[in-house]
Amino acid sequence: MTALLTDLYQLSMLQAYLAERMEENAVFELFVRKLPPTRNFLVAAGLEQALAYLESLSFTEDEIRWVEQQGSFSAQLVRYLREFRFTGDVDAVPEGTVFFPDEPILRVSAPLPQAQFVESRLLNIVHLQTLIASKAARIALRAPGRQLVDFGMRRAHGAEAALFAARAAYVAGFEGTATTLAGMRYDIPVYGTMAHSFVQVHASEQQAFEAFCRARPRNPVLLVDTYDTEAAVEKVAALAPMLAREGIRISAVRLDSGDLAAHAKATRSILDRAGLHDVGIFASGNIDEHRIDALLAAGAPIDGFGVGTALDTSSDAPALDMVYKLQSYAGQPRRKRSEGKATWPGPKQVYRHRDGEGHLVHDVVRLDTERSDGEPLLRPCLRAGRRVLPQPSLGQLRSHCAAELAALPEPLRALAPAETPYRAAISEELRALAHRLDALEH
Amino acid sequence: MTALLTDLYQLSMLQAYLAERMEENAVFELFVRKLPPTRNFLVAAGLEQALAYLESLSFTEDEIRWVEQQGSFSAQLVRYLREFRFTGDVDAVPEGTVFFPDEPILRVSAPLPQAQFVESRLLNIVHLQTLIASKAARIALRAPGRQLVDFGMRRAHGAEAALFAARAAYVAGFEGTATTLAGMRYDIPVYGTMAHSFVQVHASEQQAFEAFCRARPRNPVLLVDTYDTEAAVEKVAALAPMLAREGIRISAVRLDSGDLAAHAKATRSILDRAGLHDVGIFASGNIDEHRIDALLAAGAPIDGFGVGTALDTSSDAPALDMVYKLQSYAGQPRRKRSEGKATWPGPKQVYRHRDGEGHLVHDVVRLDTERSDGEPLLRPCLRAGRRVLPQPSLGQLRSHCAAELAALPEPLRALAPAETPYRAAISEELRALAHRLDALEH
Repeated sequence: MTALLTDLYQLSMLQAYLAERMEENAVFELFVRKLPPTRNFLVAAGLEQALAYLESLSFTEDEIRWVEQQGSFSAQLVRYLREFRFTGDVDAVPEGTVFFPDEPILRVSAPLPQAQFVESRLLNIVHLQTLIASKAARIALRAPGRQLVDFGMRRAHGAEAALFAARAAYVAGFEGTATTLAGMRYDIPVYGTMAHSFVQVHASEQQAFEAFCRARPRNPVLLVDTYDTEAAVEKVAALAPMLAREGIRISAVRLDSGDLAAHAKATRSILDRAGLHDVGIFASGNIDEHRIDALLAAGAPIDGFGVGTALDTSSDAPALDMVYKLQSYAGQPRRKRSEGKATWPGPKQVYRHRDGEGHLVHDVVRLDTERSDGEPLLRPCLRAGRRVLPQPSLGQLRSHCAAELAALPEPLRALAPAETPYRAAISEELRALAHRLDALEH
Repeated sequence: MTALLTDLYQLSMLQAYLAERMEENAVFELFVRKLPPTRNFLVAAGLEQALAYLESLSFTEDEIRWVEQQGSFSAQLVRYLREFRFTGDVDAVPEGTVFFPDEPILRVSAPLPQAQFVESRLLNIVHLQTLIASKAARIALRAPGRQLVDFGMRRAHGAEAALFAARAAYVAGFEGTATTLAGMRYDIPVYGTMAHSFVQVHASEQQAFEAFCRARPRNPVLLVDTYDTEAAVEKVAALAPMLAREGIRISAVRLDSGDLAAHAKATRSILDRAGLHDVGIFASGNIDEHRIDALLAAGAPIDGFGVGTALDTSSDAPALDMVYKLQSYAGQPRRKRSEGKATWPGPKQVYRHRDGEGHLVHDVVRLDTERSDGEPLLRPCLRAGRRVLPQPSLGQLRSHCAAELAALPEPLRALAPAETPYRAAISEELRALAHRLDALEH
């Protein structure tokens, strides 16, 4: 992605930093200030795309020309932008890791203009994928043993949102996506059924089902709610033996409207009566974690869910209070004191403590110069702008995330806000440093 | 954008249509089923990008190879995709037009496989821009005479969301954006101030302000809430005469935290006491239409607002119930009857009726074969895949939208849901057709 995908103020500040020769090292940290009221935890994601952005960051000739044409930028800035590369260090928590407010999940240490400049796009990438992974994890926790597929492309916020949502949902436990390009780009399993229009253009529903199964004979899923759900399932039951003789096994029927619990029960009984015990029931249409929870609690025999809008827009919380803040410059810790938005100063590390079974017990945010036992969450990713380690595969991230979710204390796994939110402790040394800085004049 | 940015089921259905030689003309319409509970109207946007998508639609060699590699697609489909182009007709309402549930805003008439295939990405484009334009219009209505700037890139859902949000907000009345690439790509005015980090890296706030003004002497805006807002404004007041001697006029101060009404009043009085009547006050930080309304009602002397997350994610309603549905195939009207999701069949037109002053009075959705007075909202855009008319400039769309908002009946301009929602009437002929179709067997 292009370097000019940033906020104008980054260019303004760079111009000032260059004029003042302020190019010493700065440390910024990316973190969430508070959880959305409906949430108990977050899941980090997007690191791979963030690192790829930093590694490839440079201005095109067209972008340089646009900057020049504005007439308000210095020749010094333009020269600087021509050669602009990211040469700093990055430490971050692995994708799929559970985290909480005030815990830095990504730390940039680089010459001030570089560390400043990357703020807007780093947040744009990590915020979105973390948002979706967190929502997907919440959904996955409510649907144990059920197949979950991302159906959200059409209402995702643009092309990149659809692709990142498919990726982040897969990391957090979804089995795949309907978004074809995400399958191609990230090697995520892709799934698909049929649209109502397919049924509507055929002379009859039965003809549509037959045509679809013959054209796509590998595990077809038939959409049964275009006119009358139970009547359609009866047609499926009648068709199945004939199709079986052609070697076509109907994989599932898909419900997409009405009372899904009632339709699922009626559908199961029609299918079972016809001996079609292995034809599954897949549900879609305004599905979210609450709806899944209610359906399964009601005993709805649903084997899988297509989750669209609620997942891809994180509809209950379409944004996180995620920020990227200066922690030190030229080796000196810095603190922002704005009302309600004060930061903990200095480069930090998060130490996680677990019980014997691996469950989270508590986290402590410490200055990175402190010693501590516990598991440090931030790991080296880039040094001097280059990768330290190969990026793990999506499959590895997915396993890591599954282990993380399994290690969540029970109250955090619930849909309702936990009575006692999990909150990282702030170390004594860090508090003392904040105190000292507050006493300084500005 | 690549053709493979679609749902897998589109490819499955195309394979079936080709196998069945079902390539007659189909008409699909894009519309919203219902308003979000918080809203009284919507503003159409995204048509330009939708048409550009259709005009340029084709599969790359890599994409064709991916389709082949899946092993489940027919040689016939692969041959078809190689030559795939959009050759159909599109009619749509101009961007910036106000619209309501059940009113088609875009109609595609094309050979069935083409009209079907484009569903996912057309929705992805038009949904997002309509979502943001609708939110931006709601914000603009609460801030008459105030400068509104899009500050949302960092929490927009990815790159395209940030760019489309900047564009849609501009159409709906924002003056510009902080997103630099949107400025370059769409020629939208770009604005920027400074970050807290800029203040923090300097030895003192005063030094930061001076350095910024000298580096960016054209109408600088100074951020005053890093440590203590009123103390910072006093520093600005003290600096202003010195900077004025250097020819630098401070344009505004920016408040970003705390009680914005109280800070704005205190700031105004400090600036006025120093004779700085022409230094404006710009506010940001969790701004939305409700907050703007409350601040202005409280008499807060704020001249402009930076609106970020609430705008770019449409936070109160991050998705619309927007769909793209088959209306006819091979000249025969079709109707989906799914519970709670039934459609009005056949290709349609929306007629708008206004009073003598141009205010909306009522809309009627009719079959496009009916005659009616009133203003038809859907206009020809593409014929046989090519533009009929040049695309209006963003400036023209912006003027059109301003006129549309001025024509809204007063109850629809309010923040609260209107007691009587504005709802298009459905013509007698259309109801009669739906009735006839419901009587058919499927």
